[in-house]
Amino acid sequence: MTTEAPAQLLSRAMAEAAAEIDQALSVLLPPEEGPEAPLFAAMRYAAIGGGKRLRGFLVLEGARQFAVSRQAALRVAAAIEMVHAYSLVHDDLPAMDDDDLRRGKPTVHKAWDEATAILAGDALQCHAFTVLAEEDTHSDPAVRAELVRCLSKAAGPRGMCGGQMLDMLAERSGATPDEVEIGRLQTLKTGKLIEFSAEAGAILGKAAPSQRHALLAYGRDLGAAFQIADDLLDATVSAEEAGKATGKDAAAGKATLVGLLGLERARLQAERLVSQAKDHLDAFGERGDLLRMLADFTIERRS
Amino acid sequence: MTTEAPAQLLSRAMAEAAAEIDQALSVLLPPEEGPEAPLFAAMRYAAIGGGKRLRGFLVLEGARQFAVSRQAALRVAAAIEMVHAYSLVHDDLPAMDDDDLRRGKPTVHKAWDEATAILAGDALQCHAFTVLAEEDTHSDPAVRAELVRCLSKAAGPRGMCGGQMLDMLAERSGATPDEVEIGRLQTLKTGKLIEFSAEAGAILGKAAPSQRHALLAYGRDLGAAFQIADDLLDATVSAEEAGKATGKDAAAGKATLVGLLGLERARLQAERLVSQAKDHLDAFGERGDLLRMLADFTIERRS
Repeated sequence: MTTEAPAQLLSRAMAEAAAEIDQALSVLLPPEEGPEAPLFAAMRYAAIGGGKRLRGFLVLEGARQFAVSRQAALRVAAAIEMVHAYSLVHDDLPAMDDDDLRRGKPTVHKAWDEATAILAGDALQCHAFTVLAEEDTHSDPAVRAELVRCLSKAAGPRGMCGGQMLDMLAERSGATPDEVEIGRLQTLKTGKLIEFSAEAGAILGKAAPSQRHALLAYGRDLGAAFQIADDLLDATVSAEEAGKATGKDAAAGKATLVGLLGLERARLQAERLVSQAKDHLDAFGERGDLLRMLADFTIERRS
Repeated sequence: MTTEAPAQLLSRAMAEAAAEIDQALSVLLPPEEGPEAPLFAAMRYAAIGGGKRLRGFLVLEGARQFAVSRQAALRVAAAIEMVHAYSLVHDDLPAMDDDDLRRGKPTVHKAWDEATAILAGDALQCHAFTVLAEEDTHSDPAVRAELVRCLSKAAGPRGMCGGQMLDMLAERSGATPDEVEIGRLQTLKTGKLIEFSAEAGAILGKAAPSQRHALLAYGRDLGAAFQIADDLLDATVSAEEAGKATGKDAAAGKATLVGLLGLERARLQAERLVSQAKDHLDAFGERGDLLRMLADFTIERRS
């Protein structure tokens, strides 16, 4: 038992996991050597050293429930973070969101150029599948094939890419999507990859279907709560406190659940999702505590 | 035995294979339905109904040596063609080669827009891995995982993406690369995927390592011969005869082996590669005849 407060415990665990994931990414991505070095440099710049590593943390904590080896869990965490990083590199391109900064650093197409950013994103996605398919990830090839199948579905045309398309279409049409449409967009664009991140540990651990499903359902509710919390932050917290620009959604006329339901109902819905997410963890004992804290943290965080 | 001339036999076999591969792509890609339809439409437009299907044909003929089921071979052929199609969509983007036409049709970013082209390419690559990882491709998960590992390596940072980076860097530097550098560039940019296409049938058929290696080596020499033949066509054949613009390399100041070695030595090298490619097939009997004809065809074709 620890006497540390949950918020501190969680933030320390997440920081430690992020450092380990960065270390794994550094080993798994090609070193900046040889004539292709600019490509490798851009891949490393995009993938290493950024963000909360929510997805990677979910893999590690999911894997902890089934005593999966740390090396295997870190490889899968790194692969998912490569896919997440590629999606950000392509989203930031001038033809997409046209962002010059990402977490305070120039975006890849600013630090290099558009062509390199397109290629680095392509190569990051591809390399994630190499990492999953290699024997070091798991001795059982059925586990490796299942990881590839699930990640590619979460990131593909009926997952992240489909959600990105819906987001673009919604922005262009100017019409206000309804609650169902917003939910579908967010489920595809960010939800599917978060679900898979939570589920991956169970795949690695060859868990019973009920346990695998419990983690997936936890990931689904967590992802939805996280999205609402993000929108609430954007709508209510000052940029200084959040450490990033806020009020962007309203300024961009972007439809969010917060805009549709209002602050109070959105907050209630996020709380309901958090409580539901934790219910899915009932079958897991103390080892699920960090996942429970993470759920609570989604609506408590201020950045 | 047939009395058909080899060239006719080959071209009929390739046309039949192309039709079957198109049919497989049509089934495997998401139908143009639902709110994400524009993404699915762009993916189908990019992948279905174009080109000689050299890579897919290699998969089917490689698989024929080991009596692999047609359905399995077609799924792998379709997956490789998805990766090839995605690479063309991204290569054609304004930030890359900036091409408005591909095989006489508007490129994806012209028919839709840049953002849709980026996303459609991303989704095509991702979907290729879903297809390989699904059980329908092979009952043995070790085969599926190995296919994913090899395709992702052939297309990733140390394969196609790396070669594309080298190509960009060479064009920007303006320096003339030497024979070794050109060879490396072409091996990565197009060679690795052609090698894997030839090898894939052996993976599906759980062939002995020596047989798998023979097909890979055949693919390597074939790919290199094909590249020189392409450059020779560009340098010597009229646009009318080739059915596409020729003389482009010289006009663009692009370094090719033909430019470096001269027409005669380049032609000799292509012939040597074709003969070497066929030697690798010695262990295969009559069932390897179409692969032998394909090798001969690389230097005989006029388009």
